[in-house]
Amino acid sequence: MKLSEVAEFIGGKLVGDGEVEITGVAGLDEAEAGDITFAINGKKGAKASAILVKDGVNLDLPYIIVQNPKLSFCKILSRFAKTSHPSGIHKLAIIGKAELGKDVAIGAGSVIENGAKIGDRAIIYPNVYIGCDVSIGEGTIIYPQVVIKRASIGKAVIIHSGVVIGSDGFGYLQHNGENVKVPHQGNVVIDDEVEIGANTTIDCGTTGSTSIGAGTKIDNLVQIAHNCVVGKNCVIVAQVGISGSVQIGDNTMIAGQVGISDHIKIGKNVRIAARAVVTKDIEDGKMVSGFPAKEHQREKRLIASINQLPELIKRVKELENSEKS
Amino acid sequence: MKLSEVAEFIGGKLVGDGEVEITGVAGLDEAEAGDITFAINGKKGAKASAILVKDGVNLDLPYIIVQNPKLSFCKILSRFAKTSHPSGIHKLAIIGKAELGKDVAIGAGSVIENGAKIGDRAIIYPNVYIGCDVSIGEGTIIYPQVVIKRASIGKAVIIHSGVVIGSDGFGYLQHNGENVKVPHQGNVVIDDEVEIGANTTIDCGTTGSTSIGAGTKIDNLVQIAHNCVVGKNCVIVAQVGISGSVQIGDNTMIAGQVGISDHIKIGKNVRIAARAVVTKDIEDGKMVSGFPAKEHQREKRLIASINQLPELIKRVKELENSEKS
Amino acid sequence: MKLSEVAEFIGGKLVGDGEVEITGVAGLDEAEAGDITFAINGKKGAKASAILVKDGVNLDLPYIIVQNPKLSFCKILSRFAKTSHPSGIHKLAIIGKAELGKDVAIGAGSVIENGAKIGDRAIIYPNVYIGCDVSIGEGTIIYPQVVIKRASIGKAVIIHSGVVIGSDGFGYLQHNGENVKVPHQGNVVIDDEVEIGANTTIDCGTTGSTSIGAGTKIDNLVQIAHNCVVGKNCVIVAQVGISGSVQIGDNTMIAGQVGISDHIKIGKNVRIAARAVVTKDIEDGKMVSGFPAKEHQREKRLIASINQLPELIKRVKELENSEKS
Repeated sequence: MKLSEVAEFIGGKLVGDGEVEITGVAGLDEAEAGDITFAINGKKGAKASAILVKDGVNLDLPYIIVQNPKLSFCKILSRFAKTSHPSGIHKLAIIGKAELGKDVAIGAGSVIENGAKIGDRAIIYPNVYIGCDVSIGEGTIIYPQVVIKRASIGKAVIIHSGVVIGSDGFGYLQHNGENVKVPHQGNVVIDDEVEIGANTTIDCGTTGSTSIGAGTKIDNLVQIAHNCVVGKNCVIVAQVGISGSVQIGDNTMIAGQVGISDHIKIGKNVRIAARAVVTKDIEDGKMVSGFPAKEHQREKRLIASINQLPELIKRVKELENSEKS
Repeated sequence: MKLSEVAEFIGGKLVGDGEVEITGVAGLDEAEAGDITFAINGKKGAKASAILVKDGVNLDLPYIIVQNPKLSFCKILSRFAKTSHPSGIHKLAIIGKAELGKDVAIGAGSVIENGAKIGDRAIIYPNVYIGCDVSIGEGTIIYPQVVIKRASIGKAVIIHSGVVIGSDGFGYLQHNGENVKVPHQGNVVIDDEVEIGANTTIDCGTTGSTSIGAGTKIDNLVQIAHNCVVGKNCVIVAQVGISGSVQIGDNTMIAGQVGISDHIKIGKNVRIAARAVVTKDIEDGKMVSGFPAKEHQREKRLIASINQLPELIKRVKELENSEKS
Repeated sequence: MKLSEVAEFIGGKLVGDGEVEITGVAGLDEAEAGDITFAINGKKGAKASAILVKDGVNLDLPYIIVQNPKLSFCKILSRFAKTSHPSGIHKLAIIGKAELGKDVAIGAGSVIENGAKIGDRAIIYPNVYIGCDVSIGEGTIIYPQVVIKRASIGKAVIIHSGVVIGSDGFGYLQHNGENVKVPHQGNVVIDDEVEIGANTTIDCGTTGSTSIGAGTKIDNLVQIAHNCVVGKNCVIVAQVGISGSVQIGDNTMIAGQVGISDHIKIGKNVRIAARAVVTKDIEDGKMVSGFPAKEHQREKRLIASINQLPELIKRVKELENSEKS
């Protein structure tokens, strides 16, 4: 692909030799000759053959001026992507009386139970399990070793390997010293364009649904318990644990290893810093951190105060000594 | 099912129209016409057709008086459950010279190695791996994508998808700057009526066993290391990590994201609050929290003290100023 | 195996009856008649038939003097190991146009995509998925339910069940209120003699590689994000989460449930205590703990100070009272 073609593809303004052949795409540090890369904050990629910039000045190599270099970089990366998904239905797929859309791909060893519905162009890799009460939307991609039961999955969803959706929630009644299991008869509803990272678990509702709003992105090894309701376009980073019946508003960002107590209500546009433990409801737009989670400015002040504590103890000692004398 | 039949099934006292047709079961918030629901602490389900209560007064809808509404609710929920497990042995199951009990179900793609023993009425979903040194008790349910090696599993155990039992423990010797692997030749013993949540991992003993007592319930994404001994009827919530050779007494509850150091001994009836880090032994009946975990009342006092810290720093400053003047 | 043969096998000095028959190997607490065990710090195994010691004095049972009893114990344990890996290629393995070395084992239900390369004597258990861009080194063992995509795996690597290698990294661009996926076209490079615990996830690089150095050992349920570079002979304990583009030097030890922020650089021979949160670069040889992680001595002093805080508040109160009076 010539650089002039790349410029046209992303709608950017080419400066320099458009005849340069672009053979790859790479981050600033990994870029080699033939690659196009991108620059943020003035850092430049010395070895690349071309660069995406926001404002082009004094560059030795050809560049393309675009509004959002990283976004354009992603577009080119997708274009150059070598990913080839499986196609067709493998003869060793085990498919019950299921409803299959057009151009569905199902890999070897995958089990589709009776009554499941698979939308057009959905891609199911090998060794996946799709239970009898599951519907999968159009164009959704399900990677190997995923288990989905009692769930409705939207369109263009991406589910990475090892994810378990629709497993029983963790509910027991203490009765005569034993833990009596609360049956879980609810389901999971995953809306369009959600992405779920490897080995994440999302339990089904006790009755009713556990639901994830459209466009929400979930990282690896996250736990989402029964009857949680997560809004749209949220971001949930790795190893977060969300207890039962938590409600989370749209556009909320939850950083890594956060824990959230059960039945908490979290507003829209909230930011929860890494490793926080949320034990109380959070209003729209707040940023919280710490354990228990509190307004981020307050938490920062407490941490600064703790750092002064050994010194403070000395100062109190001195006050006591001078009082005695 | 008529409401009068429901009342008889759970042994409760019906008040109101017993001819009402009950077609479903739902939590208070999700209940619709036709559903039976339950009330705690005076909250009532407006849309339901019937309700389970402890003391029935002034209700507009028919109700059933029972000792434990939630427990009765669970019984009805189980009765209405639509769960249909697989039955029979699928022709694409791969079964070695294993000992299979009566009415065993084994799904497609599941591998049962030579020498494994599967008890009567055990249900093994598709794509499960059962190693050669494994015995599975009567009526145990194993969901898709589970791996079990070197383990003895009791009766009526439930193992959710993605669980790995019997993987090597994490043991190395530092020798000449390298990590020499300690071979793991022990096993895992899971007693009757244990439930293990999705993607949880339980390692085998180095020599000897890692063991989980009868009736203990374990949530998703929990790590239990080699040679741990967990008592009966414990509850271990999601993302807990238990290091090697920890001993835990009966009826102990461990909340989410707790960490426990190796070789710790924890008594019976202990409660460990969420996110605590246990670094010392805990006596029977204690409640602990914090990092390092300490008596809960002490931890609460420390947190309250920390909250006063910025103010305290000001007060010390004032004392110093008044001393100088 | 006679005790004299055991002594010869480990190159130790036998004291006592070399004719004793050794039928097993066990830890100090589990050892029974017939077993050989080992002693550290003077603790002796009463029931065992023989014992490995560093300095032999006044023992009732036969013993072998060795430099490193635990290391010798591991060697004997390996010798007695009953582990039998699968051999040969199962007729229900699904193998594309892949390059298979000599004496490779591939289990039932495992899928090897076109273009994958499997080295000599590699062992692939059942229900594993090996993608098209994967090479596996000689003698590497891959347990059931593992998924490997876009990865180069070294020699003598051990990958436990449920591990996911090469899944997309968690990268999105915020654009017009939506999360635009950053395509992930990089790979994962795992060097020789690495061991990876059950259900751990290692994401591929965005462009470039996520890499794990030779001899590094990783426990269960660990998350390693895109473009991380982990050195040689590191030890990473269970449930650690490492964010994107983190660099870690050789011989570094990371204890359980640690979190590391993105783009952090950690030196060689660093020790990170359990549950720490690393938010800044760490120099070679440091030991850190706490949240945010700081030098361990400093963290210990802060914790000691916090423990004095309720008392300190009282003392300040008294100073204020005496000032007023």
